[in-house]
Amino acid sequence: MTAPYTLILLRHGQSEWNKTNQFTGWVDVRLTEQGRGEAARGGELLKDSGILPDVLHTSLLSRAIQTANIALDAADRLWIPVKRSWRLNERHYGDLQGKDKAETLEQFGEEQFMLWRRSFDVPPPALPDDSPYSQVNDPRYAGIDGEVPRTESLKIVIDRLLPYWENEIVPDLKAGKTVLVTAHGNSLRGLVKHLDGISDADIAELNIPTGIPLVYRLGEDLMPLEPGAYLDPEAAAAGAAAVASQGKG
Amino acid sequence: MTAPYTLILLRHGQSEWNKTNQFTGWVDVRLTEQGRGEAARGGELLKDSGILPDVLHTSLLSRAIQTANIALDAADRLWIPVKRSWRLNERHYGDLQGKDKAETLEQFGEEQFMLWRRSFDVPPPALPDDSPYSQVNDPRYAGIDGEVPRTESLKIVIDRLLPYWENEIVPDLKAGKTVLVTAHGNSLRGLVKHLDGISDADIAELNIPTGIPLVYRLGEDLMPLEPGAYLDPEAAAAGAAAVASQGKG
Repeated sequence: MTAPYTLILLRHGQSEWNKTNQFTGWVDVRLTEQGRGEAARGGELLKDSGILPDVLHTSLLSRAIQTANIALDAADRLWIPVKRSWRLNERHYGDLQGKDKAETLEQFGEEQFMLWRRSFDVPPPALPDDSPYSQVNDPRYAGIDGEVPRTESLKIVIDRLLPYWENEIVPDLKAGKTVLVTAHGNSLRGLVKHLDGISDADIAELNIPTGIPLVYRLGEDLMPLEPGAYLDPEAAAAGAAAVASQGKG
Repeated sequence: MTAPYTLILLRHGQSEWNKTNQFTGWVDVRLTEQGRGEAARGGELLKDSGILPDVLHTSLLSRAIQTANIALDAADRLWIPVKRSWRLNERHYGDLQGKDKAETLEQFGEEQFMLWRRSFDVPPPALPDDSPYSQVNDPRYAGIDGEVPRTESLKIVIDRLLPYWENEIVPDLKAGKTVLVTAHGNSLRGLVKHLDGISDADIAELNIPTGIPLVYRLGEDLMPLEPGAYLDPEAAAAGAAAVASQGKG
């Protein structure tokens, strides 16, 4: 097949811990009812646009899988093939996992808080293996290369994400398939950073809204022919602003 | 890995056309609320039993995929790998698809009705390609070997099912994985016929209840070491009786 190739990115809707304003990372919380509604709306946007995925890639986290399942049901594409990988997981938030965002902001101050949230290569403190929020004994990660993360920076996320992009997603695109990637704020920021050539400094300002499909048309070099386009631009702008203000309330 | 291998069969819960008592076959109707509840209960039975699937095989029909998605969510196993195939689809019901079961019984009489429903090798009349219930233009079947069926007997279902059993499911079992197959009344009857060595005549009497996991322990020869066991035997017996009386109401 020849270009343009079509890639759809979809960030999961509101999770239980988005609602309670806790750092989540690799903790496997589910979608709220609002999040399920966002996922259904995302699927309806796909259906209405006629941009229909031929294959799905998800993380191993339930909130991304639920989002995909609900969106594909709404788009009448439940039957497409699925691949899942820990490489699409949210950034591991280390010892911040489970903590209240507002309390963390208050405790550590805005400078440290924003460093952990938005710096490119500074990971939060490592999560102890005996934490209830650790994944070291989670059977879903039994097969991953190397060790289960104890914390990650955005840089680390990109380093584990890009091999999956190259080895699993790009071949599907080159086969002419419209690819849907259903994942998380930081794994999708990492992918958008790569596609849009955003600098390590500028990526801090990028916020991806939840539940709104972001569609890229890619050329033979697998880079965008034009800027990615949200299927509901107005809702996307409002959603990105809401993400940017998280933890400040 | 060595035996015993663990296989779990799960028939989808009530669909919209189960509720309205219409022949469904390959028409892609969704689960009802009751059907969604059955799927969740099936997942809870898996979770409570500790018999947790490592890999999922589904048909390409939404009601089986929804059942799997809901059951795996309840069992906290959304993240397992998934394979889908038309070879696990329900029997294609030919020109009966979309028809009311009670009206069909009245129109054609009990002998013909039961012949279509329960004979081993007599398919119903073929579904015309211009029927709204035809799948000849459905993109999900673009990649299947050969032509989209216009009608099927149980024998034809078994003939297209067993290659998938041998080539896709058995290798997962031999790798030591607990396999969940989420499918349909007739594709699961075909698989149980093979596993339990049921004759062409006796398979007519077998009814598989909806939403209750049926667990087999298989030996090195991939045949049962003991009879398959429903995780809720009492509900299974009641469910099988309900299936047997379908269309007679």
